[in-house]
Order: sequence, then C-alpha cells, then structure tokens
Amino acid sequence: MNRIYLDNAATTKTDEDVLNEMIPFFAEYFGNASSLHSFGKKAKVILEDSRDFIAEFFGADSKNIIFTNSGTESNNHAIKGTAFKNLGSGKDHIISSSVEHSSVLDTLKYLESRFNFNVTYIKPDRFGRIDPAEVLNSVTDKTFLISLMHSNNETGAVTDIKSITKELADKNICFHSDTVQSAGKSQLNFKDMKVNFTTVSAHKIYGPKGIAALYIKDKTLTDKLLHGGKQERDLRGGTENIPLIAGFKKAVELLKTNMEKDISYYEKLKLLLTNGLTEYYSDGIIFNSDTINCLPNIVNISFDRKKLEFDEEMLLIQLDLKGIAVSGGSACTAGTLKPSHVLRQIGHDEKTALGSLRISIGRNNSEKDIVLFMNALKEIVKNK
Amino acid sequence: MNRIYLDNAATTKTDEDVLNEMIPFFAEYFGNASSLHSFGKKAKVILEDSRDFIAEFFGADSKNIIFTNSGTESNNHAIKGTAFKNLGSGKDHIISSSVEHSSVLDTLKYLESRFNFNVTYIKPDRFGRIDPAEVLNSVTDKTFLISLMHSNNETGAVTDIKSITKELADKNICFHSDTVQSAGKSQLNFKDMKVNFTTVSAHKIYGPKGIAALYIKDKTLTDKLLHGGKQERDLRGGTENIPLIAGFKKAVELLKTNMEKDISYYEKLKLLLTNGLTEYYSDGIIFNSDTINCLPNIVNISFDRKKLEFDEEMLLIQLDLKGIAVSGGSACTAGTLKPSHVLRQIGHDEKTALGSLRISIGRNNSEKDIVLFMNALKEIVKNK
Repeated sequence: MNRIYLDNAATTKTDEDVLNEMIPFFAEYFGNASSLHSFGKKAKVILEDSRDFIAEFFGADSKNIIFTNSGTESNNHAIKGTAFKNLGSGKDHIISSSVEHSSVLDTLKYLESRFNFNVTYIKPDRFGRIDPAEVLNSVTDKTFLISLMHSNNETGAVTDIKSITKELADKNICFHSDTVQSAGKSQLNFKDMKVNFTTVSAHKIYGPKGIAALYIKDKTLTDKLLHGGKQERDLRGGTENIPLIAGFKKAVELLKTNMEKDISYYEKLKLLLTNGLTEYYSDGIIFNSDTINCLPNIVNISFDRKKLEFDEEMLLIQLDLKGIAVSGGSACTAGTLKPSHVLRQIGHDEKTALGSLRISIGRNNSEKDIVLFMNALKEIVKNK
Repeated sequence: MNRIYLDNAATTKTDEDVLNEMIPFFAEYFGNASSLHSFGKKAKVILEDSRDFIAEFFGADSKNIIFTNSGTESNNHAIKGTAFKNLGSGKDHIISSSVEHSSVLDTLKYLESRFNFNVTYIKPDRFGRIDPAEVLNSVTDKTFLISLMHSNNETGAVTDIKSITKELADKNICFHSDTVQSAGKSQLNFKDMKVNFTTVSAHKIYGPKGIAALYIKDKTLTDKLLHGGKQERDLRGGTENIPLIAGFKKAVELLKTNMEKDISYYEKLKLLLTNGLTEYYSDGIIFNSDTINCLPNIVNISFDRKKLEFDEEMLLIQLDLKGIAVSGGSACTAGTLKPSHVLRQIGHDEKTALGSLRISIGRNNSEKDIVLFMNALKEIVKNK
C-alpha cells in the first residue's frame, strides 16, 4: 500500500541530504569533541560551525545557543532551571497557558506539587491563541517566569509573543517560548522576540530525532538541567552529539534555502484541503485552526455529530487502514487515548475532542496526497 | 598520517553494522513511536524489541529499562530523581565517592548547594577503588541513596558493588551504579548486582552517541527528570529515538557475540602495553591501573619526574602530532586542562596528574597500534 504521511507536526522524515551529511560522523570522524587530540578537534570544529550557522538563522548569537537532546529537554531546562535558580528567593509565581505542550505543562505541574511553586494557566480562545493582555494582567510581584508557546502543536495557533515581551522590558521576569512547531513555518528571530529562552527541535524540520537547541540569553538566570562536564559553555553536561548536530545544521541549511518556498507550498496545500473539507461537509466541519495567526501547515478539525455520521474512536484506525497517517491529538499523549487537553481547553466536549483530526502538511506531500486524504475521509465520515 | 585511536573510553567509533542498522530508520521508517498509525506502530515494535534485547543482555526485565539520551542524563535522573522524591522526608544523606564521573559528582554538588542535601564522598585507594566497608560504615539513619561507579573511567578500577548491596538488603537505601565503562568489558547482571539503578551508554560500546539506558528497579522510588509525554512507561518524556535505539540494540548484539573474545583481546594488548612500558621505563613508570580488579582495556600511567624527562603540558599534543590519540584525564573535563580529580584523589600532585596518560584499547586496535604508541612515547618521554 502506498502510504500517505500527513503527520509532519509529530515528526518528519529525515531529509536524504541530512542523512548523507551525518553518516561520516558516525564511523569516520567519531571523536569526542571534548578530547584534545585531532579526533576531538575535528569534532569540535563541526560543533562550533553548526552552532554558528543555526544561531545566525534564528537571529541569535552563537554563545546563546546550546545543543540539547530534545524539545522536551530544552523546555525542562528553561523552566526548571529558572525555577530552581529562584528557589527560596520569595519569587514563586509562573505564568503559562493551559494549551502548552506536555513537556511544559507536566514540568509546571511537577514544580507545583514537589516544590510549591504557583502557576497561573491562561485559557486560550477557541482556536488556541492566548490573549497577551490577560498574560500581562496576571503578573504579580512574585512572578519570575512566563512560558508561552509561539505556536500550538495541535491547532497551529500563533500567539503574538512580542506584544507581551515588549511590555516586560523593565520587569525582572524571564520569558520562555517553545518555538518547536514554528521553526521552518514562520520567520523566527530570537533577539527580536525579546525572550530569554526558546526551544527548537531538529526532527520537526527534516533533521534527526535526538537533537535540539535551547536559546539562553543570559546564563546567569538559570541552573543547569544536566550536570556533568563543562560542555556547552558549562550549561549542559554530556558528550556532544556531533553526527546529529551536523544533521541539524544541514536541516537548517535546507530551511534557509527552502523556507519561503516551503511556506507558500504549505499554504497552497492547506487551502486545497480546507476548501475540499468545506465543500463536502459544509457546516458539518468545525475548524479548530483559524485562517489567520496560524501555522501554514496545520489544519485541525472536528466534526459535528448532529450533521455527520462517524465513529470517533475508530477514526484514526480507519484512516490508517486506508493508508493515511494523521494525528488525533498531540503525538506525545496519543498513545494513552485520552482526549487532547488542547481541544478540551478550546471548548470541545470529550467525544468531539476524541473524534478530531490534526492534518499536518510537510515538504514531501503532494496535491495528490490531499485528494487521497479527502477521498478516504469521505468514506469514513459521511454526511447524514 | 595514519592515526591511531587509543581513546576508546572517551568514545568509540560507531560499528559499520550499527550504522547500517540505523540508516533505514532515519528516512524510511521514521514514524513517531507514540503515533497510532502504521508509521508509529512500526517504530513502536522496534522500540520494544530493542528494549527486550538490551534488557536481557544485562540481566534485567524489559519493564525496568528506559532509554535516555546519555550516561549523563541517566546519572542525573537516578540521583536527582531519588533526591527530589525524598525532599522533605527527613532523609537527606547520600554516600558516593570522590572519584565518580563528573555527571555524578556535579549532580551531587548541585544537590548540596541548591537543596541542602548532605553527601559523604568516600576516598579511593591508590588505584581508584572504593572500600566497601567504608561505604557501609558511612550509612546513617538519614541515608537514602548510595551512588558508586562499577568501574572508574580513568583508572579502570572495579569496585565490588555486590559486596555492598548484599549488606543493604534490609535497609531502605537506593543504590545507583554508573556502569558506563564496564559494559562490554565486564559481565554485568543488574538483577544479580542488587542495585536500584544502573547506567549504560551506547557510544562506549561501538553504538551511536545520544542514546543510553537507565535501569530502574522500582519506579516508585524516583521522580522523572524529563517531564513531558507518557513515553518510557511514564518515566521519561520526549520522542523516542528509534534510529539510535535500533543502533544501540545492534551494538549490544555485537557484544553478545563478541564480548568474551573482545575481553581476551583487550587483555592481550594491555599486557603487551604494560610489559613494553615496564621494560623501557622500569620504575620510572607509575601504574595508576592495578593488575587485578581493573577493566581489561584501560591502562592509566604517570611518570616519575625524577627518573624521566618530559613536558607534562605538551604530552598529549606531542603524541597527537605523532598521530596517537590518548587521553590525559576524563574526556569530559579534558577541555578545561584542569588536572584530573581522579588522579589527584588517588594521591598524585597536580603536575604528575597533568602529565598522566589514559590509554584505552578498543576492538579496532591492533598489536601494531601498541608498538607504534610505544615508539612515539619513547621519543617524547625519555629516560634520564
């Protein structure tokens, strides 16, 4: 069966150029970048070249970028690191939203339960966006950290981070933004965003799994998460992963060349998809992704059970049997079959949330993929 | 120049079979193992097959093995997770040694300075071994964790872990052992060792960098380190790294086939090396690695400045110029040019420590490599 992958927000296929870039670093140039001999020095050069390139692409200074293992690690690092640094300072209040990725939400819940931090979770609008005014109104004199994603991984909703950070200039509050889903789909400039921390992950941009970056504007504001050697400017212990870092750099090189074209292409396929859905299902379809302030590659939809016939719990499986891979919720929690917390927060009941779909378009999709997805969906979700 | 790599304790060359095993999982079977569609399910099968195989090799149940990014992460997880779980319980005492890897030592120092835990650091004998009796004598009614490496990454000294853990059976104390250097050089059976946590890293056994395992005997005794999704039996958030996990499995398969042969081979080359050193330098050479209770692949040596002529600070560079890659201290701290804490702890002054060498033999070394190392060394370190 010719399978169609429309789950690019969960993970992307590693680009062939990225894979080819990585291969020599496994078995040829395999030195430990902390070693003082030639094997190590070669690794160190690749490490710093890659850091420079990636930093420049995201509008950051090299010294502010560290490599981590994953978006999850970067988010844990920024949030726990800042929280622990503030432990016992009297400042114990964090602001976030109720639609963050689990690596932010679960970290915050842990800080509340184990370390008695207080967290305000801002609720989203019906597309998953956060109101900047509400964030600013929640600031107290005990607030030391705000963590808000740049774009939502389920609905694609983009929050205007800069409109918040520009109001915080004179306040002593760290700002962390998870930009994992935005990279490659939105122009990001970390300096312009006026944030203290951002998170980027390679496997969402056709790079390998297991490598990510954390932007740290001021290293004195956070504790380390992984203690050990002095690697990464003494901000993260552990042997540097040169093969994956070289692959990450290549993935960013491809973004630099292709991003504008990619975005136009995503928009074109997205329009084809949303038009097709509206045409066939009319007002039976509920769009959880807005047409503005939304990533160009994500369409999240629910179905009106009054107007359409379908089986919520079988939806993903039925599509998979027809060769279509999409997501019903965040991939990270999908295994548990719990309705997505994001879809619940934007106002859906459990059943509607469970019967929702996230279609996330990628560089490797074609117009035909959208047509085949629509054909499959029509056989599974039927007008009454 | 034909370069000779004798720094296999820092990192190993990824085996070609391991690399070939990984390649299809980057760009062909690239699904997110948490996804419910076929791409995800394929990934999930590889994940669990690999876990089963690795667990069995190390004498563990699959349910007790989680995949992490690195030995450093595994060590941080075991130690911080257990410490935070005990926060506020009245138990605040940890026992470790002063020759642990930096990922253990720096974690412990952080727990002391930020969270007021108390740590007893047992001092080693002159080869880096820890006296089990001294460990047991340090236990107080506030002790909740003991962390001791199975073998030392610099001297290769092996500590008899079981002689300690068997005395702790009726005490409510967690035992963590960093077995990163021992894997592949010593028979390890985690159940037999009667430990709660052990750490293994793939890139020390001809697998890729960026993947490691943590053995967790009882998940109720530790907090998570990386909060996020419910991956790894809700013990570690983050997208599972299927390519590297498949590579890790292959590396363990190769151990299963080759380990006995590998060990004999290491022993043979080690003897060639130690005999060569003794023959040429007589009592000018100081062995920091014992002939018993020591890994078969590590020889750590210092030089007696009264009897030999050499330049401590240039030693590694001079060897590198002759094409020889060895280590002067732990790779993770080598970049800083600080004398190794291990060599200081076993009794060397700063200068002697700085002028020491760790030669670590690997599967890809030949007898000729040892001869060429000796020839190079003789030109750099000279008898007076």
